[in-house]
Amino acid sequence: MDLVLDEDGPLYLQLARALKEAMATGRLTNGTRLPSSREMAYDLNLSRTTVVAAYEHLRAEGFITGRVGSGSYVTSPWSAPVRPPPARRAVVAQSAFSRRAREFSTLGNIPGHRPPGMRYAFQYGMPVVNTALTAQWTRELARAAPYVQPNYPRIQGLPALREAVSRHVGRTRGVVCTPDDVLIVGGTQQAFSLIARVLLDEGDQVALEEPHYFSARTLLQIHGARLIGIPVDAEGMQVDRLPDPAVKLTCVTPSHQFPTGSVLSHERRLALLEYARLGSGWILEDDYDGEFRHDQQPVKALQQLDRDGRVLYVGSFSKTLFPALRLGYIIMPPGLKDDLLVAKWSDDFGTPSMDQAALAGFITSGGYDRHLRQVTRKLAERRNLMRSLLEQHCGDRLEIMESHSGMHLVAWVHDMPAAEGEALIHAARERKLALYSIAPCYLQPPDRTGLIMGFSAMSPSELRDAVPLFAKCLALFPRRAAGDRSRPALYLASSSG
Amino acid sequence: MDLVLDEDGPLYLQLARALKEAMATGRLTNGTRLPSSREMAYDLNLSRTTVVAAYEHLRAEGFITGRVGSGSYVTSPWSAPVRPPPARRAVVAQSAFSRRAREFSTLGNIPGHRPPGMRYAFQYGMPVVNTALTAQWTRELARAAPYVQPNYPRIQGLPALREAVSRHVGRTRGVVCTPDDVLIVGGTQQAFSLIARVLLDEGDQVALEEPHYFSARTLLQIHGARLIGIPVDAEGMQVDRLPDPAVKLTCVTPSHQFPTGSVLSHERRLALLEYARLGSGWILEDDYDGEFRHDQQPVKALQQLDRDGRVLYVGSFSKTLFPALRLGYIIMPPGLKDDLLVAKWSDDFGTPSMDQAALAGFITSGGYDRHLRQVTRKLAERRNLMRSLLEQHCGDRLEIMESHSGMHLVAWVHDMPAAEGEALIHAARERKLALYSIAPCYLQPPDRTGLIMGFSAMSPSELRDAVPLFAKCLALFPRRAAGDRSRPALYLASSSG
Repeated sequence: MDLVLDEDGPLYLQLARALKEAMATGRLTNGTRLPSSREMAYDLNLSRTTVVAAYEHLRAEGFITGRVGSGSYVTSPWSAPVRPPPARRAVVAQSAFSRRAREFSTLGNIPGHRPPGMRYAFQYGMPVVNTALTAQWTRELARAAPYVQPNYPRIQGLPALREAVSRHVGRTRGVVCTPDDVLIVGGTQQAFSLIARVLLDEGDQVALEEPHYFSARTLLQIHGARLIGIPVDAEGMQVDRLPDPAVKLTCVTPSHQFPTGSVLSHERRLALLEYARLGSGWILEDDYDGEFRHDQQPVKALQQLDRDGRVLYVGSFSKTLFPALRLGYIIMPPGLKDDLLVAKWSDDFGTPSMDQAALAGFITSGGYDRHLRQVTRKLAERRNLMRSLLEQHCGDRLEIMESHSGMHLVAWVHDMPAAEGEALIHAARERKLALYSIAPCYLQPPDRTGLIMGFSAMSPSELRDAVPLFAKCLALFPRRAAGDRSRPALYLASSSG
Repeated sequence: MDLVLDEDGPLYLQLARALKEAMATGRLTNGTRLPSSREMAYDLNLSRTTVVAAYEHLRAEGFITGRVGSGSYVTSPWSAPVRPPPARRAVVAQSAFSRRAREFSTLGNIPGHRPPGMRYAFQYGMPVVNTALTAQWTRELARAAPYVQPNYPRIQGLPALREAVSRHVGRTRGVVCTPDDVLIVGGTQQAFSLIARVLLDEGDQVALEEPHYFSARTLLQIHGARLIGIPVDAEGMQVDRLPDPAVKLTCVTPSHQFPTGSVLSHERRLALLEYARLGSGWILEDDYDGEFRHDQQPVKALQQLDRDGRVLYVGSFSKTLFPALRLGYIIMPPGLKDDLLVAKWSDDFGTPSMDQAALAGFITSGGYDRHLRQVTRKLAERRNLMRSLLEQHCGDRLEIMESHSGMHLVAWVHDMPAAEGEALIHAARERKLALYSIAPCYLQPPDRTGLIMGFSAMSPSELRDAVPLFAKCLALFPRRAAGDRSRPALYLASSSG
């Protein structure tokens, strides 16, 4: 039986869901006998206990009858539909939005996506989450819930949260704003989405860093933007290479360039603001993890220098708390405030109140600051550990980019062309280790192998196992002498097999 | 001092926030002496206790110094900004979306909006909320939170919730679907928003009932749709008046037409489906409160009859639980599934997980069904009470439309032109009673006075006070003899004053 588990929660519930899905779609019809728990366990490589628990669960819910031993039979509530569901038919794209969505869609490209079945994954964009945080969050929710107004939320966000955010970003990031400038949104993705709608028509030019955050790129493409990649060096985006006439919107990560980690220099900040001012353009400052500065003072936000109201500052709690929360904010420049509010109104009437209230309490009570300090310390430890492990095990095979904040490092493999990098990722995956190529972060991927190596979602002991495993995978692809352009051993082996 | 309280939570916190807002925007600068609590209480018509509590709160947070009696002085953290905030400058609309948003925006048009300072409001679209539900929801959250995956949510929604929803709508609404057809969204507004993006280009024709749900209309206008209103009678939308060639999308509320309450007849349902099939068009079935059927069997969903995959069925938990939750769903036709998923991806990466998990538990445990039964019983009681109170106090001034479900009634005032209806609403508001005109629900408002009278957000005893008050307001506008087109007394009085 061909069942796919969804990797969400306990295994027995995953299996129960997969079986229900098979019933719902008609692959398992009423009266069908299920394989014995022993057969099913063998087929799916699960323990028999898991299968028995799944069957018991389905029995309790009335999806199967019979007893272990004498066979289990499907009694699906979906077995006698009023009409067969309509066939999945190809429909031509119904709008320009859908046409572009079909062209550019990369649904799998969620930050921190972990392929199923891996032992280790250098996931990036995944925060340090521990049970203490989950427990604390549950307490904050329970504390806030009774006081939350059940009515439609404020479109702009809960006043208490807007106040807490404005004070927090003012204090920690130097952002100049009042609570009235804050728009609470459902994470960075919604921030980009609202900004795209308010600023862009199909064909409008948008400049973004090369490399960049791929989800933002895809989103902008789906909204019809024409993208121009601006190269990045150790001082961030090469602002002097921005096109003339000026683009409508420039997207930057000035505090910690994603993914390379460089910081936009003061001169370039001023030049970028001047560019936007002269061209009546806009700047989207994505400060996705600027709070995680490990070994020196945090770099202040670009927004602080903006005297003309040209910067839309975007922040998120996905990295500092956890992504399932879906909370972020835009610090709106005065001229776009009303348009952004209407866009948010039109999108969803406002962000759910309960989480907003809990977060406002968490920030105001000082708990959020304590959490940030703890996480920053942990991230610094893991970053230092991973750096030294990589140096120890991979030696001079890697060029690791300087970065003093965040949750990942970028490592380039010396003299390894991109195609060979793909083979490396494939070989690692067969050994249950997930690696992440930097290539999707480019409009024009370079012909060398770069990896984004997240260290936030692995404990120190996992890092101590995962890095040597990575080194072993790397050793499958021996370094070639300069000028040697022959295919490496592994290619020859696999092409003969 | 000109302070506006935001009506959110305890009064002293509202006042404290308003003062902080004044500090943040520079209206109250560092060192300013605040009015004494006595003066402030008098100015704002608040109790002195409230003002003292607000001052104490600000003192505790470090926003003011000094003691009660000797004067309080502002020590705002915002008093010395790095730069003055940029002036709020008029910016021309930056995109076609923004141009339309500025033309059609009606930010105040949130269902159930209650103007500040009212004693009673015939709010509609506001669910029956009680402290028992809030407490129960808090428990569901606390139960679910520790098991929620902190990572990015599924774009399509939590598997457990999709399964619970598909079973629930199958059982209660006759909707034919599997968990794989369910897309969890942030309420009806996001459902409309995603559907508009996936189906519509600027200028595409959309048919909607006349009258209709005004937020949906505005949203469609902002997305550039050309709208065609189709009149409604006692059998719902007059489907035979749909234009030829067929429109791209038809929006209907077949189970309980909003706001009139009629039910789309079986013949018209079949005709509408045939219209969509022949014209390759789509049907958005907004089943916003079809579960609240007071005195007979629920009307099944139109989706049940759809053999061609042309119906997008939209449901929401805003009415059955509470709007602050921001949870709803689309039952997707097979041909649009992938496009809708990408639209959701591009919009916000998925709906927050915590509330989804709590809701899945609430439905699966049977708590949601129990809650629905209770609420339906309460709604039926309140509807019957309001109907009889209106008949008793307003006699034959009103024509109340038949409706057997939902949370409001529509009442037409005999022989009262629309302009006089506006004066009636104004007069009621001066007596702290909020009335809601039906006019915003029309593309072409009729020249008579219709009111949407919600009964869900008022207790029986409040209804017993509010309806007589309404009758008194109505009596200010005496009924005129047939053919009498002179202005009523109130107009003459106000024009002379």
